[in-house]
Parts: sequence; structure tokens; C-alpha cells
Amino acid sequence: MKIRSVLSAAVLAVSTVFASTQALAQEKFTLRLAETWGPNFPIFGEATKNMAEMAEKMSDGRLRIRIDSSNKHKAPFGVFDMVKAGQYDMGHSASYYWKGKVPNTLFFTSMPFGMTAQEQYAWFYYGDGMELMQEVYEPHNLMSFPGGNTGIQMGGWFRKEINSVDDLQGLKMRIPGFAGEVFAEVGVSPTNIAPGELYTALERNTIDAVEWVGPALDLRLGFQQIADYYYTGWHEPATELQFLVNKKTWEKLPADLQEILRISMRTAAYDMLIQSQHENAKAWATIKEEHPELQVKQFPEEVFEAMYKANQKLLKEAAEGDELASRIVASQEEYLEKSRAYTDISERAYLNTMAEVE
Amino acid sequence: MKIRSVLSAAVLAVSTVFASTQALAQEKFTLRLAETWGPNFPIFGEATKNMAEMAEKMSDGRLRIRIDSSNKHKAPFGVFDMVKAGQYDMGHSASYYWKGKVPNTLFFTSMPFGMTAQEQYAWFYYGDGMELMQEVYEPHNLMSFPGGNTGIQMGGWFRKEINSVDDLQGLKMRIPGFAGEVFAEVGVSPTNIAPGELYTALERNTIDAVEWVGPALDLRLGFQQIADYYYTGWHEPATELQFLVNKKTWEKLPADLQEILRISMRTAAYDMLIQSQHENAKAWATIKEEHPELQVKQFPEEVFEAMYKANQKLLKEAAEGDELASRIVASQEEYLEKSRAYTDISERAYLNTMAEVE
Repeated sequence: MKIRSVLSAAVLAVSTVFASTQALAQEKFTLRLAETWGPNFPIFGEATKNMAEMAEKMSDGRLRIRIDSSNKHKAPFGVFDMVKAGQYDMGHSASYYWKGKVPNTLFFTSMPFGMTAQEQYAWFYYGDGMELMQEVYEPHNLMSFPGGNTGIQMGGWFRKEINSVDDLQGLKMRIPGFAGEVFAEVGVSPTNIAPGELYTALERNTIDAVEWVGPALDLRLGFQQIADYYYTGWHEPATELQFLVNKKTWEKLPADLQEILRISMRTAAYDMLIQSQHENAKAWATIKEEHPELQVKQFPEEVFEAMYKANQKLLKEAAEGDELASRIVASQEEYLEKSRAYTDISERAYLNTMAEVE
Repeated sequence: MKIRSVLSAAVLAVSTVFASTQALAQEKFTLRLAETWGPNFPIFGEATKNMAEMAEKMSDGRLRIRIDSSNKHKAPFGVFDMVKAGQYDMGHSASYYWKGKVPNTLFFTSMPFGMTAQEQYAWFYYGDGMELMQEVYEPHNLMSFPGGNTGIQMGGWFRKEINSVDDLQGLKMRIPGFAGEVFAEVGVSPTNIAPGELYTALERNTIDAVEWVGPALDLRLGFQQIADYYYTGWHEPATELQFLVNKKTWEKLPADLQEILRISMRTAAYDMLIQSQHENAKAWATIKEEHPELQVKQFPEEVFEAMYKANQKLLKEAAEGDELASRIVASQEEYLEKSRAYTDISERAYLNTMAEVE
């Protein structure tokens, strides 16, 4: 009896040590993520799911991410605040949505006449991009990471052709953000209309033009049925979404799970660029087939020149009197210049060659 | 005495259970990787190190990859055989190096007049690319994964200008592989010269032209000092390196480490494309500054047309009588056509717009 009870006490004691060691080694974390998008939003929403799946598999279930879409948290543009407050551990959104709150967040999504996705990732990861972005988010107890790229967004759907700056005067167009401000400078009246009402607004001439994303996401809204002209892009050449992580959440993760989270976000971001290429190509083939009469147009040089000037003016104003903004703008301008000189003799030269040959 | 010895026996028994459970959960793997490159080879060699670091950190040291460069294993072009035989668990090389051994490996690095990096990744990951590649490597007990992209390779350094197909007749050029065969079809004499002797060969007119990679890697070899013309690319628009994994090695890894390995390779590959963009832009700025007289040229349309025809002819020959080769060529052609139609209205239109504006 005595021996038995001592024995079972010993087993119990050792088991407890065992269990607690295991618990430490295998502590599990469930992070809550709020995304700006509705449930099953294509491409953007797949980026968060892709990230969460990689993190869960690589951690053998020790790192789970529970995603709430906007139908759950009801605050699509409250992601910054909710992650900052620790209401959510993570967010998936776009940095430029917070420019009214923290002006310098503007620069980390995409800028008119700015870098392409490949150039911009190079700026983030091998130039100063990540450090500058962290400097902006640091005071808010947040970490920000690239969250997936749409590629070059199209210039939008127009019901009439644009042949000059004159044709833009008073033109009512759905185009939000900084690009809307640039368009306003050259005479356009940017309007804000809920996505669900855009088709009807364009059909009834409440608006004359609408900018959305690119073929893959535009196709579902049906603009190709009522607009004759699809203009090429200039205003968001590399729209990068954003993962936000609350700093306290980050710090409580062990080093291996931090790395798993970092790499899952990084890979999901790259994957989204590649998926966008795929889905856009597929959707564009469908649109072309169903609407052979649709014309793809570039704005005339006069229009581009006017928008470019307006953009430079607004950028200068945005940077004025803000030391950090000035450094960001200078870094982006310098990087773009150097990067584009190479892109011009590689990507651009090759694509132009191929267009000639076939 | 008796009680003590029973107790310590019990502790021992439980500890053994504990230790073996821990060992199972924490079993460590060290994989040996052979790379084609020499030690500290820039960009290519950094891709393997980047991959190994991610895997080790994410697995908390449970998955280590020991890299042997060509100075160790002495068989830069033996990587396929060594990984197939299980002499190494993994390899880092380029798929087209094995075309003499397994002809259909040719298609998974880059093809003349083929897809750009963004298009090709989309084909691999969202089209049929990965499946077709696996079909080729499966009989060799190997798994193959994208291993990093150089971006568009430049057309090469020429000492005299090429104005017509006539100028290519008898031209001695270092250009290996399938592209060399295409060039041979239009009159060039492709020659194979060891990298260390290329500079002298070009300087002494033993060869008239040399193709290497792009600004970042070309800069170190010094061709800019002795060639007046740098031609834009057509023959390797998206050179993708390759990770090889022996199937038995893969199968002995637990699921979480398989996923960690898969994602480390995927991210290292993407990262290399982005690093290439960065390093090429930097090197190109240096070359331009030091050699303002250097001329960047596109081959005249006549030359491109001739090379394009030669390429189509050789592709047809390569696919003839091989069912799998025919499927690969058809898949790439179809994907390229669809993808490029979109790239033309997005990336190409944007880059051309920007070139006009500034």
C-alpha cells in the first residue's frame, strides 16, 4: 500500500512536470484578425485565408488566425483603430485608408505615377520602405507589413472618349483618395458612391466614369455592359494591401511563431500579386470575348502631363513642413528613378519588342 | 531503501516516456543541399541561404539545411544526379541544365519570347505549371520547385552594332542552351567559353559578343569596359532557378516541416526576383554613370522576326513525338497569350505612359 501510494505520487509529480513542459513548448495562440472586406471577397479575402492556412500548417496548429470580415465587426474602416486598441490582434486593409487620421500612412499603398509592384517590393524589402513604414506606425503601437498587391489598377470605365483636358471639365467620376484629388486639380468632379450603386449611377449618367480595380474585380460589377472605353492606369500602379499587427500581440509570440507569422504574411502578399495577374488575365479574356467593341484607351499625352503636374504639386504640399513625409517622398522618388531606368531597358523593352513581333 | 528504489525506478520510467515523446515532437532534421554555384555567388547563392534561414527560424532549429557550394561537391552540373541518387537531399540549380538528360526539363527555366516572371509565376502557381513540372520530375524520384528569378536577362554585350540579319552571319557569341540554338538558326556561331575567360575573349576579338545575365551580375565581369552596345533581352525573359528535393527526404519529414520547407522555398524564390530588381537597378546606375557613352539597343525588327521564326521551328521540333512536351508547349503558349493580352493593357501601357510623360 505504502509503496503503491508513493509510486503513484511520484508518477503524478513527474507527469505534472511533463505536462507543463509540453504546455510551454506547445503553447497555442489564436489571433483575431479584422479585415476591411466582406466575407468571400475575391483575391483580397483569399490573401488573409492563404496567410492563416500557412501559419496554421507551419506551426502544427500552434498559431491560428481567426478572420472576421466586415459583416462581423461592422467597421470596415475601423481596422486601424481596432488593432491599435487591441480589440483585434491583426488587421487586413490598405494603408491609405488612414490618411485622414495619420497623414503619412498615405504613402504605403500606391502613389500616382509611382512604382510598379516589382519596383515597390524592392523598395520595401531592399530599399528603405519597411523602415519608413515602421516609423509611421510605431507611435500607434502597430506593425505594418505588405499585404498583397493588385498589380496596376486600370484608369477606369468611361462612357465618352477623353481627347483633351477640356473633356475632363466637370466630368463626374467615382475615384477616391489622392488620385481623386489629382483628378480634381485638372477639372474632374470626383464623387463618392457606394459600390452597390455604381452600376446604376453609371447607367443613368449620374456619373460619367468610374474607377474600380482591374478586370478581375471590375467584371463582377458589369461596367463593360454600359461603358465603351476602358482607360489604362496611372493613379495606382501597384496597390499594396496591408497587414497590421498589434505590437503587444507580436511580443507575446515566441520567436519561431513570429517568424512563421512574418513569412506567412510575406508569402500571402506575393501570392496575391501573382493571383491578381492570373485572375485579371482570365477576366480580361472574358470581357474581350463578350464585348469585342470595347475600346482600350490611353489618356492623351496632354492629359497625362496635366495630371503629372497636379500630382507633383499635391505631393509637394503633402510633404511640406513634415520632416518624415519629406523623407518618404524623397526616398520613393529616388528609388523610382533608379529602378525605372532599369525597368525601361528590361521589362518595358521586352514587352514592346514582343508587341512588335507578333 | 525499498521505497526509494521503487520511486527512482518510477521516475526513470516516466522520464523515459517523457524523453521519447519530446524526441518525437522535436525530432531534428539536417538536410544537405548541393548548389550549382560557387561559394558566395551573389543573388543566386543568397536565395539558398535565405531559404535555409527561414526554415531554421520557423522550425525553431528542427529543420536545418546545410549548403554545399560547387567548391565542395565539385559537380556544378551533377546536382540533378546527386539529389536523384540521395547523395544530397536537396539541390539548387536551373531546370534547363538537365535537358541533355531529360529533354522535358528544358521548359521550366525560361523560354525565348516567353512569359515574364510575373506571368510565369502565375502559370506555375495558378495555371498548370507546377503539375506539369512535377510530371517531368516524378519518374526521377524528385520534386521540383521554383527557386528564384533573375527577371528579364539582357540580350548581351556586342562590340559592333547589329542592323540586320546579315550582321549576325558568322558572329561568334557566347550564348548557351536553347537560345544559342535559336541564334545558330539565324547565322550566329554560338561558342562556349568558361566564365573566367570571357572578358579576355571579348577583348581580343576571339568572340564578338557575350550574353551573361543582367547588370548586377554582368558588372563584375567588366564587359562595359570593352563593348559599346548593350542589347535588350528576348531569350530568357524570366529565368527561374530551381529547388530540387529528393522524394524520400520529403516523405520522412512531418507535415509541419514539409510546409515550412515548401514556404521557405516559395518565399526565397519570390525574394530573389525582388532582390534582382534591386541589384540590377543599382548596378545599371553605376554602369551608366561610369560609361555614359554605352548604347542600349534593341535588335531591329527584322532580326527579332527571324529569331522568333527560328524559335517557333525549334519549339515544334522539341515537342514533336513527345506527348508530354506537346502538352507543356501548348499550356505555355495558351497561358502566355492570355496573360500577355492583360500585361499589354496594364504593365506595358503604364510603363510607356510614364516614359512619355517624363
